[in-house]
Amino acid sequence: MTLVRNAADLGGSEARETALACLDAGIDAANPERAVADAVTLDGQSLKIADDSYDLREFDDVFVLGGGKAGVGVARALENRLGDRLTEGVVVVPDPAELSRVEVAVGDHPVPSERGVEGTRRLLDLAEAADDRTLVLAVVTGGGSALLAAPAEGVSLEDLKETTDALLDSGAEIHEMNAVRKHLSAIKGGRLARAAAPATVVGLVLSDVVGDDLSVIASGPTAPDETTYADALDVLERYDIDAPEAVRTRLERGAAAELDETPRPDDPVFDRVRNVVLAGNFTSLDAARNEAEARGYDACILSSRVRGESREAAKTHVAVAEEANFTGNPVSPPAVVLSGGETTVTVRGDGTGGPNQEFALSAAIEFATAWRASREVVLGSVDTDGRDGGTDVAGAVVDAGTVDDVAAARDALADNDAFTYLDARDAIVETGPTGTNVNDLRVLVVGDGE
Amino acid sequence: MTLVRNAADLGGSEARETALACLDAGIDAANPERAVADAVTLDGQSLKIADDSYDLREFDDVFVLGGGKAGVGVARALENRLGDRLTEGVVVVPDPAELSRVEVAVGDHPVPSERGVEGTRRLLDLAEAADDRTLVLAVVTGGGSALLAAPAEGVSLEDLKETTDALLDSGAEIHEMNAVRKHLSAIKGGRLARAAAPATVVGLVLSDVVGDDLSVIASGPTAPDETTYADALDVLERYDIDAPEAVRTRLERGAAAELDETPRPDDPVFDRVRNVVLAGNFTSLDAARNEAEARGYDACILSSRVRGESREAAKTHVAVAEEANFTGNPVSPPAVVLSGGETTVTVRGDGTGGPNQEFALSAAIEFATAWRASREVVLGSVDTDGRDGGTDVAGAVVDAGTVDDVAAARDALADNDAFTYLDARDAIVETGPTGTNVNDLRVLVVGDGE
Repeated sequence: MTLVRNAADLGGSEARETALACLDAGIDAANPERAVADAVTLDGQSLKIADDSYDLREFDDVFVLGGGKAGVGVARALENRLGDRLTEGVVVVPDPAELSRVEVAVGDHPVPSERGVEGTRRLLDLAEAADDRTLVLAVVTGGGSALLAAPAEGVSLEDLKETTDALLDSGAEIHEMNAVRKHLSAIKGGRLARAAAPATVVGLVLSDVVGDDLSVIASGPTAPDETTYADALDVLERYDIDAPEAVRTRLERGAAAELDETPRPDDPVFDRVRNVVLAGNFTSLDAARNEAEARGYDACILSSRVRGESREAAKTHVAVAEEANFTGNPVSPPAVVLSGGETTVTVRGDGTGGPNQEFALSAAIEFATAWRASREVVLGSVDTDGRDGGTDVAGAVVDAGTVDDVAAARDALADNDAFTYLDARDAIVETGPTGTNVNDLRVLVVGDGE
Repeated sequence: MTLVRNAADLGGSEARETALACLDAGIDAANPERAVADAVTLDGQSLKIADDSYDLREFDDVFVLGGGKAGVGVARALENRLGDRLTEGVVVVPDPAELSRVEVAVGDHPVPSERGVEGTRRLLDLAEAADDRTLVLAVVTGGGSALLAAPAEGVSLEDLKETTDALLDSGAEIHEMNAVRKHLSAIKGGRLARAAAPATVVGLVLSDVVGDDLSVIASGPTAPDETTYADALDVLERYDIDAPEAVRTRLERGAAAELDETPRPDDPVFDRVRNVVLAGNFTSLDAARNEAEARGYDACILSSRVRGESREAAKTHVAVAEEANFTGNPVSPPAVVLSGGETTVTVRGDGTGGPNQEFALSAAIEFATAWRASREVVLGSVDTDGRDGGTDVAGAVVDAGTVDDVAAARDALADNDAFTYLDARDAIVETGPTGTNVNDLRVLVVGDGE
């Protein structure tokens, strides 16, 4: 194991070691440099990206444009692969870094900032400079919605923030929020692809979105948009949102066909655009499954799309582990049950924690109160970016002995204070920043593999 | 299909018909008369019950004693099997019924009543009359905790109710509540087995408890009890419960060894006691799986032990159905994903519904907002007793078209008003009283079986 660290003594529990090894393998598989190395190869003048080949003799320039939390990793791997065939580029990312040909611009997440806007403007300027002999490798990774901020003409960053806050407070659905935001941006909703036209564009996507929806990851800078200005206006009206004047004006002008729409799926711009998902949550699950099987366990992937309240999703997972123990459904012990996705926390207390820590603590309470099996059970749950919720730890690993005081554990959960409880019991898992983000990864081990 | 009725037109959707057929098969498999017919056979003088044989020449009398919601069905099936070899008996059940040799006493559920206490007293009198040449067939089914009410000496029914209410309000765990209640009862916690000693006792159990824990089903009248008077007193203290004087006095006398303890696992009384689970949630799941496979689907049992908040558990289930659709994990379409258990509802509104209806409505909202697949998806969720929550309907069956108005559906869920929303869309499933209770049964169909 190279990434995953846990303070508890690992000696004597193979199940525990397996849980950590599966988490490690899962995170490692989603590493952007590894994902690029797997998907992108240069053979003479032929650049292969997944199933497609690009003849570099047809291009004068190769640009790398994009960003997000994993932007540096992808860009660095592309520099390594392409060498001097890479002309230049800009990525907007959360932390400073050194690259040789690609400019690293720093932006902010989850709240966009002026410095992010400045970097994104330079990125869009370079996109505009692309012509039909340019190959644009567009780096699309999680966090890009905020980092790659570019308010549309006439709209300020402050206008965007106000509108976003009002939408968040309104109870609007995520796809409704996105309809509005895409129509206030110069890069989201396929506008990066349009800015780069007539260049050939290959979106290299690291997905942090459940289901890998290209129109949602980083707000889909290289993906078609099905929504319209009129849809965006509808959302403001439906939720009675008092948007800034500039926002309303823009949407009304757009709905009156005075502004260009975001490109729809049949827009000719997409004739020269391809998007490739380099890695997503399933990539991690698949690697974790391979690790489990190599260690002699039967493995079962439940879903890469688990969502909902963390502490509740944990109960369903424990129910599956119990069934595996008692009847061998859906998988026979020694077994590893895997899932991914993105669960959420409804904050009611003022403690420290995150969705994966709450998932683990809730599971540990179930183990302490309801686990009747003689077999060992271990659960590990981490955010693959290494930061669970607002904390700087990845998640936690728990077993039937973790919760030694059920009432205190319930209190910690009620106060959203999973970190404090788990940290005191050496149950926290740390990785440091992993450089990737494919959401959450959970491993349930039932029984020993030998 | 003989049991399950749904108002919508079934024509044209094989997936929908499969969901209903699986529910039907699942409920039917847990029918008490069928379960008894499967497990109990009389061959000359040899009475076979599951893996054991009883030579009726060794017994002068065969008593049937017990009750619960499925008590009449089990007792009737035993009358049919045993004929005049059945001497007499008493079952305490929720509704009047006619049996030929066994007395049907009516009690109440979920709040116990004096008439239930009277019936239980007659039952215990008959148990006391049993001797070493008596075979007691003890009928143990869900709802028995309230129906089979017998306050211990010195404690009144009112004392019991007050104590139960205080425990419910205190946040005590279910096993803590049971520790108290078993020490205030003349029948729970193995005391029926002790009353019948030295008779041979065979507990015939229809399980409504997640995991089929014999000490929990109907409060375990024929099962050992691991808890003590001292444990019961601890619970009162831990949760600062102001119990009636008679209750406290009894527990203190018991803790001072002035009263006999509930029988522990090593108590000699259990040398002559066997408990047989005739049917439980897994019985229904297994039958539903067989039905699905007979219809050409791959089937996967997730768990018979699902618990937690209904609307949240539904999201995990939909996530599994999505994964099946897109990657064939944990089962390849056409697929049926099955689960059981007992989910709960946190009541915040004042609408009409139950856990299965909320499960279905929550899933239907997910289908309407997040289902991206071309394959059909159908979910059915029912309480196998035919009464979901406080309603007189079993549950609901939903698909991607059920929720035509997401905002109204969310409002209905927020108001705990799933019934009203689903009924208006012909999504309600009715069975009438099924005569059994093995908790909830859920069927998710992904794709058509052909």
